[in-house]
Amino acid sequence: MTIENISQAKVFGGWHKQYTHESQSLNCSMRFAIYLPPSATPATPVPVVYWLSGLTCTDENFMQKAGAFRAAAELGIAIVAPDTSPRGEDVADDENYDLGKGAGFYLNATQAPWNTHYRMYDYIVDELPALIEANFPVSSRKSISGHSMGGHGALTIGLKNSDRYRSISAFSPISNPMQCPWGQKAFAAYLGKSVESWKAYDASELLKQHMAKLPMLVDQGDADNFLHEQLKPETLVHAAQLHNSDLTLRMQPGYDHSYYFISSFIEEHLRFHAKYLLA
Amino acid sequence: MTIENISQAKVFGGWHKQYTHESQSLNCSMRFAIYLPPSATPATPVPVVYWLSGLTCTDENFMQKAGAFRAAAELGIAIVAPDTSPRGEDVADDENYDLGKGAGFYLNATQAPWNTHYRMYDYIVDELPALIEANFPVSSRKSISGHSMGGHGALTIGLKNSDRYRSISAFSPISNPMQCPWGQKAFAAYLGKSVESWKAYDASELLKQHMAKLPMLVDQGDADNFLHEQLKPETLVHAAQLHNSDLTLRMQPGYDHSYYFISSFIEEHLRFHAKYLLA
Repeated sequence: MTIENISQAKVFGGWHKQYTHESQSLNCSMRFAIYLPPSATPATPVPVVYWLSGLTCTDENFMQKAGAFRAAAELGIAIVAPDTSPRGEDVADDENYDLGKGAGFYLNATQAPWNTHYRMYDYIVDELPALIEANFPVSSRKSISGHSMGGHGALTIGLKNSDRYRSISAFSPISNPMQCPWGQKAFAAYLGKSVESWKAYDASELLKQHMAKLPMLVDQGDADNFLHEQLKPETLVHAAQLHNSDLTLRMQPGYDHSYYFISSFIEEHLRFHAKYLLA
Repeated sequence: MTIENISQAKVFGGWHKQYTHESQSLNCSMRFAIYLPPSATPATPVPVVYWLSGLTCTDENFMQKAGAFRAAAELGIAIVAPDTSPRGEDVADDENYDLGKGAGFYLNATQAPWNTHYRMYDYIVDELPALIEANFPVSSRKSISGHSMGGHGALTIGLKNSDRYRSISAFSPISNPMQCPWGQKAFAAYLGKSVESWKAYDASELLKQHMAKLPMLVDQGDADNFLHEQLKPETLVHAAQLHNSDLTLRMQPGYDHSYYFISSFIEEHLRFHAKYLLA
């Protein structure tokens, strides 16, 4: 449970810090970032929003580009941004951006060569929160959010662990990965050809099975180049309706898939989570 | 005066757009970015804040990392971010980050090999505003701001062109380049060995000569690694006091030289400029 601080910068009265640590789940060295609002002290621990990033990202994309810290500082919420896959020279990879490093898809791989390192599900659900709660002035209250592949991660992890999180949100999530090229490629590689095993990592499939126990907010730009082929939010909405799950999907006219979109609405997502984290 | 749009993204109801054009001042193709708030229309043109970035930057650093658009959208102010030097294969360069490409220092070079392209002063003062005002729904009201080398640029250009701008601000500016390693290296290369010619591009020297006609706001982090060797804000303050120039320097405890610092205070800078731009 040792972590090593490698950078820190004051921002909106709080601190952005990066750390490295040896991950047991992933069997490699990992980097993560945390934003601690000015109100976070051992005597006044703050809740945490976990942010899962999309394909090709590291811990840095959200922290540098989302413009989330003003609202997080005001609300008194910490934000943790992990990396998107295991890292290191001995970690299996693919020449394309949508498989291997930077494309862990927040699942536990069962297939070689991926299954020696690619256990991002365990890392996000168990190892990282334990590490965060042992090392920083935060409470065990947490919510989860993410973008694109990370929106898929936030939805599936939140739906499968409703006892651990208070609320779920996503920007432009891969809502039905079993039915889109990104998801089919990744699931076939990481999980094998048995499509039945894929359902545990598909937000639309999870919503078809049960009513979600957590509130969900999803924002999707209607000028997003990936909307129709890869993201399919309408499938998520239909699945949520089957059991009256509490999902709000907002189609945002004119917005694309970029961090310019995320930055425009991240404050609303943090305020949504704050309703449940600070209640 | 032809410009070519190469990207656009909706953000906070307005638009971030990048363009390329052939610069006459710089004798090369240049890229710039503009943020247009939602209120900008031909019938309701908005004022402009020009943002000058620091060493190694392009038009993208500020636009992606400063988190400036929420306030700009609310205030109804456009932001223009030029590149920091001429670009292209035939443009003279240096192997170090602090001279040549990415390090134009917002001056007109007089020395070979720099004098064929490095005329960033003319580009920022004349060519770019003319281009912006001819192509976008903006008024001729403008202010100028920047960071580090760009803070030096904002101060010197604003002080020398008080009829063109309404207000000046800077983050962590190189306040007295004649007396610091970055400035001495750049000025010797671009302007030659005659130190007298350097004074026209040194904010502290300009403030020693005359009272500034424009209000100036400067923020400086006291945990900035470059503070004592390169930035020297105390020299700027002393020079401003000689003729009662309207300079506010705020030392910000714990902040460093990064965009995390800029993002924490950019809204206050935009509100400072709005007082003069929207009066």
